[in-house]
Amino acid sequence: MIFPDVRAAAERIRGHVLRTPVYEVAPGLFFKLEQLQHSGSFKVRGAFNRILSAGSVPEAGVIAASGGNHGLAVAYAARSLGVRAEIFVPTVTSPVKVAGLRALGADITQTGSIYSEAAEAAAKRAAESGALEVHAYDQPEVVAGQGTVGLEIVEQTGGVDTILVAVGGGGLIAGIVLGSSALPTARQAAAKTGPAMDSGTLPTAGKGDAKTGPRVVAVEPELTHALHSALEAGRPVPVEVSGVGADALGATKVGALAYDIVSRAGVASVLVSDEAIIEARRTLWEKYRLAVEHAGATAYAALLAGAYVPEPGERVAVLVCGSNTDPATLAQPRE
Amino acid sequence: MIFPDVRAAAERIRGHVLRTPVYEVAPGLFFKLEQLQHSGSFKVRGAFNRILSAGSVPEAGVIAASGGNHGLAVAYAARSLGVRAEIFVPTVTSPVKVAGLRALGADITQTGSIYSEAAEAAAKRAAESGALEVHAYDQPEVVAGQGTVGLEIVEQTGGVDTILVAVGGGGLIAGIVLGSSALPTARQAAAKTGPAMDSGTLPTAGKGDAKTGPRVVAVEPELTHALHSALEAGRPVPVEVSGVGADALGATKVGALAYDIVSRAGVASVLVSDEAIIEARRTLWEKYRLAVEHAGATAYAALLAGAYVPEPGERVAVLVCGSNTDPATLAQPRE
Repeated sequence: MIFPDVRAAAERIRGHVLRTPVYEVAPGLFFKLEQLQHSGSFKVRGAFNRILSAGSVPEAGVIAASGGNHGLAVAYAARSLGVRAEIFVPTVTSPVKVAGLRALGADITQTGSIYSEAAEAAAKRAAESGALEVHAYDQPEVVAGQGTVGLEIVEQTGGVDTILVAVGGGGLIAGIVLGSSALPTARQAAAKTGPAMDSGTLPTAGKGDAKTGPRVVAVEPELTHALHSALEAGRPVPVEVSGVGADALGATKVGALAYDIVSRAGVASVLVSDEAIIEARRTLWEKYRLAVEHAGATAYAALLAGAYVPEPGERVAVLVCGSNTDPATLAQPRE
Repeated sequence: MIFPDVRAAAERIRGHVLRTPVYEVAPGLFFKLEQLQHSGSFKVRGAFNRILSAGSVPEAGVIAASGGNHGLAVAYAARSLGVRAEIFVPTVTSPVKVAGLRALGADITQTGSIYSEAAEAAAKRAAESGALEVHAYDQPEVVAGQGTVGLEIVEQTGGVDTILVAVGGGGLIAGIVLGSSALPTARQAAAKTGPAMDSGTLPTAGKGDAKTGPRVVAVEPELTHALHSALEAGRPVPVEVSGVGADALGATKVGALAYDIVSRAGVASVLVSDEAIIEARRTLWEKYRLAVEHAGATAYAALLAGAYVPEPGERVAVLVCGSNTDPATLAQPRE
């Protein structure tokens, strides 16, 4: 298998996306502020890489199905590149995201109650129109684009032992596994133990030794966990999706490409409750002044709720990944 | 005159405050995200430096008067250091800030319609109780503490030509003049023209030549501009205060120490309308996903509204300085 090329993606999308900041909120704890990215999530990385990799875009433009963030990203990239965008979203998509799509000038079709139904409708439409499909997670160019955030985390932190990342369809985590493994971990950087891994070499399970990149921890809501179920079953299997993260993380089946990459890498997989996600989102606002959506707080929830407990001295990066939310809901009182 | 020592302050408060991120949102345009600082503004820098410089804190604890942000900062620092805090705020202080003070366990007295009246009451109380006064802007330790954000801007950007900063009582801008002048500007760094200035040397007016630090631009609301009036009059003079920035920038007279530093340095002074501030705050949320209060958007307003127009190629840092706001007001529709 030839793995998606994250370094080439980083070159391709440079100037189109922001190098969002990382900062150390406590000794050894880093937040990657990817919710500040154009369109409000990391998804523009994959969208730009997919569209720019295509060489030329058909007359019919680009087409995507999305719980919302991917649609916003494709619409943003399309507008930025001067091509047409048609976006299919399910009815679960939040009004904030639909309004955002409209503001970006996309043609919107709201259909189906969950992402997979919107995706079917989009695929049918693409077959008719000839538009360039930009998949929300299961395309090599999309995975490679999302992986650029992993490269940046390693570069900007100077190396970490662990990266916590929220998972929906798996494109982001697969990209991060590839993107972060090409660079030395904190311990490697400190010890200067031999060369960094070649890009394209796949890491195996482990934490911070010379043969692997950072440990990547997949965090999913208890109510939507396509990757967790796939890792248990040994293959992508359909799951039910609901809960506060469903509009952004609610893939009913993990991507085949993502599963292939993630299962070989042996990432750790943890689940968090909706209550933990809500509390993490509240804490990110009250303590850190970061305005995020529920999915964007899911990785941090694993740390806050103790679903993932770092060892003493472990350097941990939390990917804060999306901010497409109604800010009026940030300061809601505890029930 | 011995100028406040910004480098010593940076050493003193290390570990107590966050090194908030800087990032380049467009080529040559940097945002310093100081609204992510503990307590929601830069004010903790001065508060910690003042309290830690005192050696010991009296039984009565610390006392401060504040439009809100300084009070939150002193209350945060006091709680963090395990001492009592008594905070006087005027009635103009926003409910969000009063609630924040309460949550930090401070003793709160709400008195007077504007900051200066609360300040008088606090001074009287301090004389009775013997508590350590932490002034909102007119103390050397406070100015030095605030200046640490200027040091960081220069270090984190690798040097800029210009820093835009919102001004209330002048403590922040005075600190930034001192803190940023000790390090080379972008052009100096690029040209390697001679040594950086000694700490304590005061820059003179100018932009990016070898004898000065970055140009510092003071941005004030048209409805509250104590520094602008002082620079016109040649001395601190009383001004009327009102408008959207008044709860954070509404000093009726610029600090004597700040005036001395700022007037010698020859900073540029510009004014922005309340409409421009509101639009800047909206843009910071909609485009950049930064949740800020009106005062926190004031420096950016100068750029967005054209009150300050950079030259081609000029490297500009905008200090985003406060986030103590009700997030429900971020997404209000245009009138």
